[in-house]
Order: sequence, then structure tokens, then C-alpha cells
Amino acid sequence: MPEVQGSRTGGDRPPQDEGAGRAIAQYIEHNFDRFLSDLRRLCRQESVSAQGRGLQEAAELLAELMRASGIEVSVHPVPGGPPVVMGEVEGRSPEALVFYNHYDVQPPEPLDAWEVPPYAAELRAGRLVARGAADNKGCLVARIQAVEALLRTRGELPITVKFVVEGEEEIGSPHLAGFLAAHRARFRAGGGLWEAGMRDRQGRPLVYLGAKGICYLELEARGSGPERHSALAPLVENPAWRLVQALSGLRDKEGRVLVPGFYDAVVLPSGEDLEMVRAIPYDPEEWRDELGLDEVPAEADSPEFFRRYLFEPTCTICGLSSGYSGPGAKTVLPSRAVAKLDFRLVPDQEPAQVEAAVRAHLAQKGFGDLLVSSHSNQEPARTPPSAAVVRAVRAAALRVYGQEPVLYPTMAGSGPLALFVKRLGVPMASVGVGHSGSGSHGPNENIRLEDYRLG
Amino acid sequence: MPEVQGSRTGGDRPPQDEGAGRAIAQYIEHNFDRFLSDLRRLCRQESVSAQGRGLQEAAELLAELMRASGIEVSVHPVPGGPPVVMGEVEGRSPEALVFYNHYDVQPPEPLDAWEVPPYAAELRAGRLVARGAADNKGCLVARIQAVEALLRTRGELPITVKFVVEGEEEIGSPHLAGFLAAHRARFRAGGGLWEAGMRDRQGRPLVYLGAKGICYLELEARGSGPERHSALAPLVENPAWRLVQALSGLRDKEGRVLVPGFYDAVVLPSGEDLEMVRAIPYDPEEWRDELGLDEVPAEADSPEFFRRYLFEPTCTICGLSSGYSGPGAKTVLPSRAVAKLDFRLVPDQEPAQVEAAVRAHLAQKGFGDLLVSSHSNQEPARTPPSAAVVRAVRAAALRVYGQEPVLYPTMAGSGPLALFVKRLGVPMASVGVGHSGSGSHGPNENIRLEDYRLG
Repeated sequence: MPEVQGSRTGGDRPPQDEGAGRAIAQYIEHNFDRFLSDLRRLCRQESVSAQGRGLQEAAELLAELMRASGIEVSVHPVPGGPPVVMGEVEGRSPEALVFYNHYDVQPPEPLDAWEVPPYAAELRAGRLVARGAADNKGCLVARIQAVEALLRTRGELPITVKFVVEGEEEIGSPHLAGFLAAHRARFRAGGGLWEAGMRDRQGRPLVYLGAKGICYLELEARGSGPERHSALAPLVENPAWRLVQALSGLRDKEGRVLVPGFYDAVVLPSGEDLEMVRAIPYDPEEWRDELGLDEVPAEADSPEFFRRYLFEPTCTICGLSSGYSGPGAKTVLPSRAVAKLDFRLVPDQEPAQVEAAVRAHLAQKGFGDLLVSSHSNQEPARTPPSAAVVRAVRAAALRVYGQEPVLYPTMAGSGPLALFVKRLGVPMASVGVGHSGSGSHGPNENIRLEDYRLG
Repeated sequence: MPEVQGSRTGGDRPPQDEGAGRAIAQYIEHNFDRFLSDLRRLCRQESVSAQGRGLQEAAELLAELMRASGIEVSVHPVPGGPPVVMGEVEGRSPEALVFYNHYDVQPPEPLDAWEVPPYAAELRAGRLVARGAADNKGCLVARIQAVEALLRTRGELPITVKFVVEGEEEIGSPHLAGFLAAHRARFRAGGGLWEAGMRDRQGRPLVYLGAKGICYLELEARGSGPERHSALAPLVENPAWRLVQALSGLRDKEGRVLVPGFYDAVVLPSGEDLEMVRAIPYDPEEWRDELGLDEVPAEADSPEFFRRYLFEPTCTICGLSSGYSGPGAKTVLPSRAVAKLDFRLVPDQEPAQVEAAVRAHLAQKGFGDLLVSSHSNQEPARTPPSAAVVRAVRAAALRVYGQEPVLYPTMAGSGPLALFVKRLGVPMASVGVGHSGSGSHGPNENIRLEDYRLG
């Protein structure tokens, strides 16, 4: 925290913020134990959307925390899905800011890779270790507590804030589009913030102005009956071979997707995009660790490195399963074989078009019998760096951290950003959460950022 | 049983067997409840060699059952593996017959596919349902009880019988070759019987004169670190894709193995082989059910059907696993990907040569980084139809069932047959066990067959 304190006493800040900022900082200091304890409570509540576990309970706990912080809360049942939690605090001006977050998390498996149980929310070496601590319960709770700190120290907010917190982000937000459309009027706002911003190893705040899209498909090859003795192999088609053959036609060894039409809608990065990419600081050590590689590109090649990372669509096998996967040998001919695939998309690829192209390609290659099901469809989206919300974030970062944030034209990950940016016309910037690796630092710093930004 | 009884009163049988046969049948009748109860005890003892479960216990229980039936038993510890149980009963003549069996079973997974628990050994609709009931505890216990019936009714056996029962057949008998070599002298015998013979739907006894070989390999592709967020896909190699690409180069869509040299040692079926194949009765209904297909070959095409089934080597994916295979979507880039493969081999393919060819092929195609481990290596083997043990089996079948058995030149499955046929020079025929689908009938009928054959 000294680093942040230090930057807050820099000379760029308008003097009228000084006293208010100090009061808020004090409030946070005095209440930090409770803040952290509330975050840990939420992290202890499992909420795995992929497995339908603990979602209602997590929504209720979240609503309780929000109400306790002075936010007006409504919990909206969603037919076929977990509830959406909405919150609002009216501000002095009619200008509005949307906070989009989610209370669900990714499955914690494989469990044996955890040093502490994923829902124990234990503190270790100055970090909060828990499934969801970073993505994105930390970010969410920090925003709630930032609002509380502002309300309790100033009595009101300068602008209106609107929370929308869903429970299906990690499975591709299948009900969010319908929900937002039905509550369209409530989301008129000049801008919005969502999760996933962070600080790099040098403490520089990273702000993402977009997200890739995603098309998550499950491919299943089915045999003609139950699992069989593999001695029947000359007579019976093997669904595992069918799946391998189908998959091998989807992508070449270099990673290029072989589905005809896949790249048709891809818009090459603009001059502005490439300018942002050139300005991204490159730390080979950091990437070596992040990627687990012995060799990473040299400094001079970093623009190409980031171009590939941020602007290339991909097809990833996320999971394979068929037949026997226990120890040793079992001579079976499997009855089914399943692959989980994600396609990460860039503007202007459309997930529905990609899904259709994959289906057509499989049929054309003789794999029309494979069952294709869709788990997640999200469009890519971008907010231009000239948007007001981006300017506000930059100014806030400058005041909080004493430096310009690093602007990423997009993140490499995905989210339902397009629903806000494209459907509702609300430009969104991704700010918040942790240091690289510091899950408990995250909320606290994020709180200060919000504080100043709102101020 | 009426069917068998009926055939036993046929006119082909030498009259001197009549009285003895009747006494034995009565003995079996009187003791059948105990016989079945002993078999169920052994089936209730799990003994999964692939998972190293319950093997010592199964060997001890087996030894107890054998001793109770009057067989002289020795349990031989095997360094690095479960014990081998040997048994012997000296007969009137020095001629000897080897019984090769195994007390281990295949893993019972997937458990939810069982209508009753695999180790409950429950009786359902006239069947004994249990992992191992058919393969091959039923066959093994029937032989033990046949020996008991002969001993108790005649006081002695006409020839010497030697049991050798191992606990690693289902994982490719890795220690059997060494064991047999060390006890070579004890296995001098004119012939032997092993498992897997059965009766088809028309009640015809099937006798197999050979077995395919097997080379069971595990291929593993490893990533550069732990499981990662799939947003890193443009930067990190995906082991699941590596595995799919490597696999897709091993076999074409028609099932032909693409590994150079794989077919070099294949000996085409002889005229005698094809003659046997032409004599195999073909029941389209039976194969339709067995294979779960809507369409099976017409009667006229059955020789080609059996030729393919019995003489074609295959490569089967027995298992695939990588990344996330739970419900719904998880956007991960896996850290490893594993395939289990079996190659079924025909004369004169050698498993070690096949393994070497696969390794060389992978290296040549750029997949030398994949980890290849071997789980099972067995040579194909054949006994000629002219062997004395085959003649004896045919004569016995004629007396028991009133008809010639159907001779298969080989089974499509594998076993350590070559260790007896090639290494010890003991011709082996595969007889015994169940009806198609009748696990509790099997032992009883087998007992009568043994009885008459030994007689």
C-alpha cells in the first residue's frame, strides 16, 4: 500500500479531493477487517454455474452484503437460470455508471492442484486464496464497499451507480441478453465498468477496452451401442477415432483454423489498435513465468507477440473424454467420445456464424453424424479509447497510481461485453481487481480507484 | 440343461462312459448349490489387475477353493506382481494337460452401466451377474469342480492335470513369461486348455485355436505447465491438439494403420484357415445384436466378414482424456492429454516391433516429444487343427453336445497363448465358459464337457 499512498500525494490532483480522499481512506482502513471478512464469506459460498452449485445461495448472500452497504437491491428470478442481482444508488447528478459483475465462478477442478481447499478462503502470505477471489468476487465486493465508503463519508454519490450481477458469466451468460433487453430502460448510462483489469508486476494498472468473443461447442461421436471389447474393432466403428478424425480437420499444426469462412469476418487491427499494442510494456520474465516457457520473444518482437495474443482468433480443445481413462490398460472400444472446444473470436466474427460454419464443415467432411451442442456464444466487442468512460478511467488511474494506465485494445479473454457495448450502447472499460497474483490486495486498491474515479 | 441332457443320451458315445458319466452328473447335481456359492464367493472378491485391487486376497481364496476340491496347491509369490496359483492332481497315466486361467478381472467401470453392483454376484433371471463371472472365474471354478467331481466319483483322474492361474492376464501378463520359463519343467504337457470358448445361440460349442496378439500403448502429450485459461491459446501449445494430431496420423478413416512397417510381418490366412472360416455358421441376427448395427453382411458375405474379424490387425483408441470433462463449459487449456491405444496383432506381427514402429513413426512426424509407455505386449499364436488336444476337444464336444464344435482358427481377442504354444511348445485350445449371455449356465456345462473330455 505505500506505493499507492505515495502516488496519492502526487501533485496532479485537484486540491478539493484531498480531504474527501483522506476521509474515505480512513473509513476503508477502519473497516478493512470487516470488508475482507465479507469478501471471504462470499468466496466460501461455492457458486459454480457449469455445475449448477450454490448459485441461489450466493445471490442471496450477495444481496445481503449489498444492502448492508446501503445499496438498494432487487433479486430478479431468471427462468431457467440463477437470479440476477441488481443494485442502485441514486447520485447527485443524473449521469449513470453501470457496474457489470458476476457472482458465479469456474469449476474448481482439478481439486488436487489446490494448496488450500478452493472454498476455504484462507489467507496465505498476504494473499486471499479462493476460487473466485480474483474472478470476480474480489472486484465485485470492492465496488460494493467503495460505494459504502463514499456514502458513509460523503452522504451521497456524485453520480448514479447501477449494479447488474449475474450468475452465469462463466458459462457464457445464456440469459443475460434477454434480461438486459427486458430491463433496457434501467441501463441507460454514459459508461460502465466490468471486471478483469489488474496491475502488472511493475504496479502499472492495466485497462482493457474490449473482449474477444467465444463460441464454445461440445462435439460428441456416438457408437452403435454400449462400450465393447476391443476385439470387435474390425467390425465396429470406434467413436473415439471418429472424433479424432473430425477434430484433426478443424485446425492445422500451426494453429490455423481450417473451417472454411472462419476468418472471413475478421477485421485486421486498426492503426489505433497497433499503436496501443506498441505501447504495452513487455516484461519477458513475467511472460516466461505466465506461459511456463523457456523461450519468449525478445523485446523487439513484443508488438507481434501482443498482436498474436490479442487479435488472433483461436480454436482450443478444452477437454477430451472417451472410454477408459483410469490407471493401466483396459481393452475397450468406447461407446462415445466427447470434445469440448472453444473458439475465441475477434471483431467482427459472430459466434452463431462460426457455429454454423463448424457444423457445415463437419457435414462436408463426412462427420455430419457428430452431435454438436453449444455451451456459450458471445460476440467480441470493443470500446474506443476516446470514450468518456476510458478518459475517466485514465484520469482516475493517473491520480491513484501517479501514472497513466496501460490500455489494452482488448483482453484475450471473453465476456458478455457486447451486450452492453453493442446492444445497449454503453461503452465499457475493464478495470479493477488484483495485482498479478495478489488476490487480497486487489479489493483494497480497487476500492481506492473507484473512490477517486467516482469522485 | 435339458438341451445338454438330451445330447448326452445321443448314440455316439462309447457305452463304457455311461455309468461314470451318470455318477458325475449326479455328483454335480447334488453339489450344485455349493459349487455356485463358491463361484459367487470368488466373484465377490474384486481382483482388478489394472488397479492393483484385491489380487492377493483373490489368490488366497482361489487356493482355498482348489484345496477343498482335492487339488494340491502352491501359491507362488511373483516379484512386482500378484502371486501365481499352481495346482496339480496326478493322474493314472503320465500324460498331462495344462489348464491356464486367471483370477484377475477387467476394471468394472463405468459403474453406472451395471444393473447390479459388479461384485454383488447376484442371480438374475437364471444368470449370475458379476464382473469376472464369464471372464474367467466361471470357467476356472468349473474346471476345479470338474476335477473334484471326477476325484470323488472315480477316485482318480485318468491323466495328470496342472493348473496355472495368474493374476495379470487382463493387463497383458507381464510376469507370466518369466514365471513359466522358471517353472518350465512343470509344464511339460501334451496339450492345454484356456478360457473363452463358448456356445453360440444355437448351442453349438465354439472352440478357438488361437489368439491375436496385442500391443497396448499409452500416449501422453504434456504442456509446458499447469492447466491454463484458454485465453492464452495464441501463445501456448495445447497438448490436446498435439495428441489429436499425432493420433490422426496413426490410422486412416477406413481403419488402415498408417504406421510404416505395421503390416510387413502379416501372414495371409492359409487355405486351412479360410476353410475353417467358411465353415463358421453365420447368424445375422446374432451379429446384429452383438454389434448393435442395423445392417450386417448377408450370408454370402460371411467368409469375408469372419476373415476381417479374425485376420485383420487393428488399432483401437480405448481411452482419451484431457482437460475438463465435467458438465457444461470450462474454458481451459489442458496441461496434458492421454490416449490409450491397443493394437491387435495377427501372425507373425511382434508387439515389440509394433511398439518400435509406432515410436519411430511419431518421431518422424514431429511427435517425438510424446511420452509412450507400454502396458501390454502379447504375441499372436495358433494351434493347428490337427493337434491332439484339438482332436480330443472335438471328440469330447461330439459326445457332450452331440455335434462337432465350430472351430475358429483364432479368436479376435488376445491372451498369453504364445507363451504356451510358442515358448513351451504346448498346443492350446480355448474351450469352456458360457453360453452367449448365460453366465451361470456356463460353469455347469463346462463341467460336463471337461468330465467327458477327461474321461
